[in-house]
Amino acid sequence: MQSFMIKGCSILTMVHGDKPFVGDLLIEGGRITNIATSIDQQVDTVIDGKDMVAMPGLINAHNHASMSLLRAFSDDLKLMDWLDKKMLPAEARMTKEDIYWGTMLGAAEMIASGTTAFADMYVQMDAVAQAVVDSGMRAALTRGLVFLEDDGGRRMIEALDLIDNWTGAGNGRITTMLGPHAPYTCPPQPLTEVIELARSRRIPLHIHLAETLEEVEKIRTRYHQTPTEYLHELGIFSDTHVLLAHAVHLTTDDVRLLRGMRGGVSHNPVSNLKLGCGITPVRKMLSQGVTVGLGTDGAGSATTLDMFAEVKAATWLQKLDSGDPTVLPAEQALRMATIESAKLLGIDAEVGTLEVGKRADLILIDLNKPHLWPVHDLYSLIAYSATGADVDTTIVNGQILMRKRQLLSMSWEEVRREALHRSARLVEGL
Amino acid sequence: MQSFMIKGCSILTMVHGDKPFVGDLLIEGGRITNIATSIDQQVDTVIDGKDMVAMPGLINAHNHASMSLLRAFSDDLKLMDWLDKKMLPAEARMTKEDIYWGTMLGAAEMIASGTTAFADMYVQMDAVAQAVVDSGMRAALTRGLVFLEDDGGRRMIEALDLIDNWTGAGNGRITTMLGPHAPYTCPPQPLTEVIELARSRRIPLHIHLAETLEEVEKIRTRYHQTPTEYLHELGIFSDTHVLLAHAVHLTTDDVRLLRGMRGGVSHNPVSNLKLGCGITPVRKMLSQGVTVGLGTDGAGSATTLDMFAEVKAATWLQKLDSGDPTVLPAEQALRMATIESAKLLGIDAEVGTLEVGKRADLILIDLNKPHLWPVHDLYSLIAYSATGADVDTTIVNGQILMRKRQLLSMSWEEVRREALHRSARLVEGL
Ligand SMILES: [Zn+2]
Ligand SMILES: [Zn+2]
Repeated sequence: MQSFMIKGCSILTMVHGDKPFVGDLLIEGGRITNIATSIDQQVDTVIDGKDMVAMPGLINAHNHASMSLLRAFSDDLKLMDWLDKKMLPAEARMTKEDIYWGTMLGAAEMIASGTTAFADMYVQMDAVAQAVVDSGMRAALTRGLVFLEDDGGRRMIEALDLIDNWTGAGNGRITTMLGPHAPYTCPPQPLTEVIELARSRRIPLHIHLAETLEEVEKIRTRYHQTPTEYLHELGIFSDTHVLLAHAVHLTTDDVRLLRGMRGGVSHNPVSNLKLGCGITPVRKMLSQGVTVGLGTDGAGSATTLDMFAEVKAATWLQKLDSGDPTVLPAEQALRMATIESAKLLGIDAEVGTLEVGKRADLILIDLNKPHLWPVHDLYSLIAYSATGADVDTTIVNGQILMRKRQLLSMSWEEVRREALHRSARLVEGL
Repeated sequence: MQSFMIKGCSILTMVHGDKPFVGDLLIEGGRITNIATSIDQQVDTVIDGKDMVAMPGLINAHNHASMSLLRAFSDDLKLMDWLDKKMLPAEARMTKEDIYWGTMLGAAEMIASGTTAFADMYVQMDAVAQAVVDSGMRAALTRGLVFLEDDGGRRMIEALDLIDNWTGAGNGRITTMLGPHAPYTCPPQPLTEVIELARSRRIPLHIHLAETLEEVEKIRTRYHQTPTEYLHELGIFSDTHVLLAHAVHLTTDDVRLLRGMRGGVSHNPVSNLKLGCGITPVRKMLSQGVTVGLGTDGAGSATTLDMFAEVKAATWLQKLDSGDPTVLPAEQALRMATIESAKLLGIDAEVGTLEVGKRADLILIDLNKPHLWPVHDLYSLIAYSATGADVDTTIVNGQILMRKRQLLSMSWEEVRREALHRSARLVEGL
């Protein structure tokens, strides 16, 4: 494995309390081995950091990457029209190969916009895992579990196969979770069994929660509870690491139930905005000590997987909601997209900040552009003005996946061609 | 003046009712002279439109371009701290040359993100106008008028000098307006005089309105009216073309007062979000037949002048506010950023759509990127996934200002250098 040095870049470690500084970054054996004002050491490759900002790669805490094939296919529709008439019929046509190439398209977009790791819940996870291995990204993978009809345990078998066959694959880049889909698709008995299994085998959980008011209504009708109370009563927050996606419609009491939970919430503000879902009570969650990271949800709803859009939307919504421009400042919003998301994926010991000893998952942002000039405050500049297109270089596990905006771990021409003809087939006649 | 043809691009005319189609676009003498599926004609230059979308250049209906020097200088602060401790002291140091180079920096960003025209209110407008001429952009310029102290009529003289000296400059690219700053900085008597002058000389007006609750309170205390009632009573909506910036805090009755007005509202959602101001009642305005376009406000508050961010924020906020994902769909949001903004600037007869006979103000968006692939719906793709960085080519008045992302009407190196040392001086010690 190559050693390399990034010379003379602005460094945002994203370690709480660290100040930005200009220096060098040494990467050896896939890990960060030195960060200092000036490092003098022979390496295989030197990267010029002039006008560049080095920061941890962004971590997308909730995604369905293969839905990138359905980007901009059915926007501006009512949620149920979107789902029933467009998304579900198109997804029903997806083959394993479609899911592989859809994930490769999503990975291409993520790498090109500075995302180095993501949490994904989908089906045919062998295909997703293979795309993660091939693209060079890091991912926490989950087979989505829906228990509305009897499938003879097929989904559960696939979920466990994913865990048994792929955990640690790609030189440790793949981790796995169990993924009961949502309170409204998981009745108490099977959900309790999944929670039990997660606890006994120490497997983290990934579940959607309270994305829409319709879901809240459904659960209230069925169980006379909020979705959060429903999960709480089944014991999900007592011991297991849980990644909650969305968590938009939580009462103040609901938020209190999350206090002390392991894991936390993936806030997905762009998708919530686009679907008109509402504003997630992020400030309440933070005040209860709940970890809040950022995710995009699938491109089917979010259209883009650009995490810089989520950073902006997250801070905007809290400022709007409170009427206070000082809440969720730029630096904190960027931490949500990096180290806080890393905690949700359970990989914060290895990535999420730039620290000696951690895996080299990092990006270089090119400031030599009108909208990123002049430099007064790097956090503000990046949070409020940068987009994924400003990422020049993306590195995962010490491997350079993009350099000067050229994807190196895949052929964009091939991904583009495969995505085109497959997506056309998926939506034909819909 | 060069003739050229863009061959084989997807064309979004943004004329209401037109469908996207693939075709050629002919530009001669600074105007669009033909749009058709295939055009066979000799031209000086042919531009390959493969993977490109041609659409009208975006029009930023409210800006203070020279404040780009203060981008990311004072974010996440209380509005009054932001203004009094940071922006005003820094702006007080601005020389005419600073304002020229600040506007050039803003123009560089606008051109690079697909904006072809903007409305601007500031001081030292000779410098702003010169930058507009030099950059090749189109602009509607206004000298901001504040009447809180007696300046012996100096500001008013400057405002009229701008109109007399610069209207029609740059081959007609510059138009001018009168700019009473806001209800809370313009008492009834001088404001009435400005309105009278605008009416008698048929000059359009550009004024801030009801950006914050503090302003609403101030006007209520002084005049026992809403800011909108205050303007209405002074007769501003009766005959004159008025460009209202923000208009966030309007009651339902206030919105009714705008019915039938000439001009309309520049909605600036990113700035409103960042400052925690609130959600502009865009749907109510539209239902009263009020024209609503999009603007950024200065980079001092918005951080970026990327109009694609405004398009997203505008549709997101209306979806959020209504809980309905179908409101303000992608195509309508893109019309707000083009032809509707053009109406606010009073230049919709010449630009804002791609139509034969109109001035050639247009952009090419490059779709050959993971986040813009595959193509299901062009409007959705551009509104929800494109950013300014996806603009490949920017053309104003038939002159190519950016090609393959290279700025052609200015030296970026020079703008960058000037912006750096000037901005450093402006903020020193603040
Ligand atoms: Zn999801
Ligand atoms: Zn303004």
